[in-house]
Amino acid sequence: MGIGHWLQGVCVIGFVLVLCAAGTGAQERPTPNLMPWPANLQTGSGRLRIDSSFSVALTGHTEARLDRAVQRFLRQLERETGLPFSANTSTKPTLTVHTGHASKEVQELGEDEGYALSVTADGAKIEAPTPLGTMHGLQTFLQLVEVSPDGFAAPTVAIQDKPRFSWRGLMIDVSRHFIPLDVLKRNLDGLEAAKMNVFHWHLSENQGFRVESKKFPKLHTLGSDGLYYTQDEIRDLIAYARDRGIRVVPEFDMPGHSTAWFVGHPELASGPGPYEIERKWGVFDPAMDPTNEKAYKFLDEFVGEMTRLFPDHYFHIGGDEVNGKQWDANPKIQEFKKSHNLATNEALQAYFSERIQKIVTKHGKAVVGWDEVFIPGVPKDIVIQSWRGQESLAKAAAQGYHGILSNGYYLDLGWSTARHYTVDPMSGPAASLTPEQQQLILGGESCMWAEYVNAENIDSRIWPRNAAIAERLWSPQNVTDLASMYARLHAVSAQLEWLGLTHRTYYPQMLRRIAGPGASSEELSALRTLADVVEPVKDYTREATATAEPTSATPLNRVVDAVPLESDVARRFGELVDKFISSSCRDAERAAQLRAQLSAWRENDAWLQPLFLRSFLVKEVAATSQNLSSLAAVGLAALDFAAKGGAAPEDWKAQQLAVIGQIEKPKSQLLVMPAPAIQKLVEAVAAGASCAASR
Amino acid sequence: MGIGHWLQGVCVIGFVLVLCAAGTGAQERPTPNLMPWPANLQTGSGRLRIDSSFSVALTGHTEARLDRAVQRFLRQLERETGLPFSANTSTKPTLTVHTGHASKEVQELGEDEGYALSVTADGAKIEAPTPLGTMHGLQTFLQLVEVSPDGFAAPTVAIQDKPRFSWRGLMIDVSRHFIPLDVLKRNLDGLEAAKMNVFHWHLSENQGFRVESKKFPKLHTLGSDGLYYTQDEIRDLIAYARDRGIRVVPEFDMPGHSTAWFVGHPELASGPGPYEIERKWGVFDPAMDPTNEKAYKFLDEFVGEMTRLFPDHYFHIGGDEVNGKQWDANPKIQEFKKSHNLATNEALQAYFSERIQKIVTKHGKAVVGWDEVFIPGVPKDIVIQSWRGQESLAKAAAQGYHGILSNGYYLDLGWSTARHYTVDPMSGPAASLTPEQQQLILGGESCMWAEYVNAENIDSRIWPRNAAIAERLWSPQNVTDLASMYARLHAVSAQLEWLGLTHRTYYPQMLRRIAGPGASSEELSALRTLADVVEPVKDYTREATATAEPTSATPLNRVVDAVPLESDVARRFGELVDKFISSSCRDAERAAQLRAQLSAWRENDAWLQPLFLRSFLVKEVAATSQNLSSLAAVGLAALDFAAKGGAAPEDWKAQQLAVIGQIEKPKSQLLVMPAPAIQKLVEAVAAGASCAASR
Repeated sequence: MGIGHWLQGVCVIGFVLVLCAAGTGAQERPTPNLMPWPANLQTGSGRLRIDSSFSVALTGHTEARLDRAVQRFLRQLERETGLPFSANTSTKPTLTVHTGHASKEVQELGEDEGYALSVTADGAKIEAPTPLGTMHGLQTFLQLVEVSPDGFAAPTVAIQDKPRFSWRGLMIDVSRHFIPLDVLKRNLDGLEAAKMNVFHWHLSENQGFRVESKKFPKLHTLGSDGLYYTQDEIRDLIAYARDRGIRVVPEFDMPGHSTAWFVGHPELASGPGPYEIERKWGVFDPAMDPTNEKAYKFLDEFVGEMTRLFPDHYFHIGGDEVNGKQWDANPKIQEFKKSHNLATNEALQAYFSERIQKIVTKHGKAVVGWDEVFIPGVPKDIVIQSWRGQESLAKAAAQGYHGILSNGYYLDLGWSTARHYTVDPMSGPAASLTPEQQQLILGGESCMWAEYVNAENIDSRIWPRNAAIAERLWSPQNVTDLASMYARLHAVSAQLEWLGLTHRTYYPQMLRRIAGPGASSEELSALRTLADVVEPVKDYTREATATAEPTSATPLNRVVDAVPLESDVARRFGELVDKFISSSCRDAERAAQLRAQLSAWRENDAWLQPLFLRSFLVKEVAATSQNLSSLAAVGLAALDFAAKGGAAPEDWKAQQLAVIGQIEKPKSQLLVMPAPAIQKLVEAVAAGASCAASR
Repeated sequence: MGIGHWLQGVCVIGFVLVLCAAGTGAQERPTPNLMPWPANLQTGSGRLRIDSSFSVALTGHTEARLDRAVQRFLRQLERETGLPFSANTSTKPTLTVHTGHASKEVQELGEDEGYALSVTADGAKIEAPTPLGTMHGLQTFLQLVEVSPDGFAAPTVAIQDKPRFSWRGLMIDVSRHFIPLDVLKRNLDGLEAAKMNVFHWHLSENQGFRVESKKFPKLHTLGSDGLYYTQDEIRDLIAYARDRGIRVVPEFDMPGHSTAWFVGHPELASGPGPYEIERKWGVFDPAMDPTNEKAYKFLDEFVGEMTRLFPDHYFHIGGDEVNGKQWDANPKIQEFKKSHNLATNEALQAYFSERIQKIVTKHGKAVVGWDEVFIPGVPKDIVIQSWRGQESLAKAAAQGYHGILSNGYYLDLGWSTARHYTVDPMSGPAASLTPEQQQLILGGESCMWAEYVNAENIDSRIWPRNAAIAERLWSPQNVTDLASMYARLHAVSAQLEWLGLTHRTYYPQMLRRIAGPGASSEELSALRTLADVVEPVKDYTREATATAEPTSATPLNRVVDAVPLESDVARRFGELVDKFISSSCRDAERAAQLRAQLSAWRENDAWLQPLFLRSFLVKEVAATSQNLSSLAAVGLAALDFAAKGGAAPEDWKAQQLAVIGQIEKPKSQLLVMPAPAIQKLVEAVAAGASCAASR
């Protein structure tokens, strides 16, 4: 135990390693921090100064929405710069905006969203055929604004920009945990900043029916615990979205994922009631009865009401994950299958889908559905949302169907930004489609499923990663450099804060709650050191690793709920290890940095001891903290071998890998993220070849 | 230059000293973090567990306001703990609340605000004669909740509590900078948490008239730049305040501080118009014409309108800082003075005050005014708000007048919390009053004047310091321990965050803006190290130290606007220096801590170099950063002498004091706060007597 422990109980001295941000040279002029990266960009050497006299003039087509967009733009610019524009009386506009003509009254898929933006030292100009492009151009300008040696400024640029895909969306599940309207609104602000144009609102589930129905009020009064949106609130949100160039696509998931409907309307179900709002997570048995004509009559009236409420041309009917158990158990349904030559439950679901699609079509809308609704003979105007893999997207396109990709964009799975970013709708099987078939792939949607998010931490599960997915769907396919992406994401994440998103501020607040408000600065700092290098378990392992079955009443107040889904500190540590190894383990500066970081991690467990005794939420991560300490000790031992030169013994290596293997098993649902990098280090110093041989 | 500089441009290693929080022993059971401290408190050894089944039952007198208070309480408890109560179906209440009877329809000064709160392992109970006491009890309970080894819990206590003073207020000036309604509301939430019961709303000034007047709409349309509150918004805020046990006292400052009135109504002024909204700070010439009967008629109608809008019994007429220049320059007024035997401008103002007081009285209200309205013969129901010193408070009381203290509670002056906390309305001249006279001292008000605050940083200028002033006005006079106050303030500050106050979150956000969103983590960390130990210049020196005359259009985006008004790091460093010196400079552990902190400060300037080149807002503090580095070098040299033993030479001491003297001169309007502690250190090692003699 080092100096930290020696001083403990009196006062402690901590070492904190400050790593470099990847790719941002300290004194270089940074690349404009644009995300999504524009289709065409030329940079100049000058700057447009931005001060309190900044103003905007609208020319060409005008409408109230554009005025509001400019007001919003100015407020955001005020927040980004701290410059007050309210008493501005300047007459010469700094930014001139020319809009060609109106866009559609109800925003449509495939409208022109392009714009041109030029900035010179004398002024800036945005030109766009429609308000949609204008609004994108304003967002690009906001991202250009930077602090300079002389004041705030935008660099000289000429940008011609337009999206690669026309459907660029985010789905939010508001059913498993209710997400209040103000939280949705600030996320729509985030979508506008990221140039996404679809908000897919997942409104019904086993765990909650979240829309007021005036025709069938038992749906929301009995199916929501009182947590639903009124129709006025929904109209307000749709207007808010339209103001930001965003379509709102509602989803009512049928025939499965529908327990909450049945609390008020058990007659729609395939099994006997009564039903209660589901509190657990998973796939459940209740499903609508596809053989019940009264159910279709009900759904016709319901879809009629909802298609009047939601103006978008598309209407999402869900269709995923029906396990068929209620159908198998119902003799009437079995009889129906036989009499209608429906051999399987898939065929029965196809029958249901076809009926629903006809209802939706009758009400003037086009259908969107998950993978499962893609069945032979379905009408060509359906859009398949591919969640199970990229194959179905390509398969649908090959048969002439439109599709959007969500597989690879599930924000709840805890993937790294890099991993999401690498997923391209046109890669894999889609790459071998004909150009005509490729045209059918409209874009994609990130998905925020809500088992483990609530109003407090949802922003952090969406942002900043969603900005990288937005770039994938907007920018040219060849924009793929990960270092550039991470460097720009770092800046864009800070800018998103000014919109009121809480994806950064929630974190120290939650850690303070976990430690208790009376925790000292050094205790909080130790908790932060640990929290900064762990991530929640990935993919669908959270239920499996839980000590008690999670439900919608389970508090989301633990370390696993508080930490970001991607550890920047661990990522940068991994980069440092790679560089050290590629220097044949001879880079003394990097060795010193690694050693300082590893020493801090090794000592950190001792500093957390007081909190283990005081807070059950910190005590829960005691084993994880001990693991970080042990892992750091392994890394330090590897550095010792590297300093001595020559290969480390094989038995030592085996021993260390065994330790690391233990550490890589999740504890308290957390992964210790520096483990793979330290394994690399161990392997490098053991394999004289990679580390020592090139000396 | 040490290792930091050696590595710079590649990557840097930082040492960060982690100092102890004063008075919070790591493993001890902390004192309940209550602020204000209750009149009577007994603690037990048990705990009441708080989990998702927590619920509240209201008994005795009930009203809708109490239901809302409980809902608000539960929401705040949800935020404090992260426990979800929305699906709670428990039947046995955890907390029972008994309220005796209704309070007054319009809250009055001196109503019973007492309550009793008992917590046992089985449950908790609040008993209060009125809803005002009930709401205070709920706030106390919220402060009791802590994280424990087994879950969230409240410690076993028995509390009997009531306020020492009946008038405990915060004044916010919304005129010099407009403060939006939502910012005021979250500050009212803060007042409720701190058990303050008056919001004094300073609504008119030279720089803005902030209330919609339906009778005289030119007042707000021409006097506010469009930044005013509608009457509906004002009613809404008053209801919001009443819900939290807070009276709203409006202030319309007359006859001075009134330029904004004259933009629309120049006929009220003593000099010829036209007038414009004042953009600068200071005392200005325009004043109402006390000789103009039409002005009194106007004011009668205006006061009539406003007294109907604001239900509180008290109405603040300002009355401060009339320089008399317009009166001296107006022959008609000179003539009036002669004909009415008014020898001085003070006498003329007394005449005006008397007329206004009669108007206010006629409309059924009692007058509050600043010091200056305390003139011989004024009616006894006036309340004197003492801002120029404690003498006037005592003098007024000695003559039978009510008073409240604001001198010593001006939040804009940048004083330490300790300094505000030490100010007591009953100290100084008031201490020698008779008990009957002392009864006339009703309490006090902190004042947030708004030259240098806006929506972004105002919370940080009010909180957490205002909680300590609230304690002074609520708690027994003998509650004065500074270490306890700072320890509890640390916890209460974190709890206030859950109300939505931004007094902590604004700070890293503003620093990121100052550094630019692309700044790396290590650059931000270096900026934070500097920002954490500087404070804005104090008292009224900000104009004098400005490079250009500040106005209401001056951006508040500089380091001086971003840093907290009190440096915790410097305060704790000072405590450490004191302990080191009192150990005769022999405490090796503390020497090591001091050395680590000083080394970090000395190196910090090198790490800020890249930001000096990139950001004008960081470049501005380059000299301050250099000063911190030089100051740290002085401290390190002092430690070297201490290590050697014996007294340091006098010429060395003189040299160091000269350096420190230079550093103590503000640069970029910032003070380097560790300077006095380092001066102490230098003097100690030079004066063998204090530092080395006792060896």
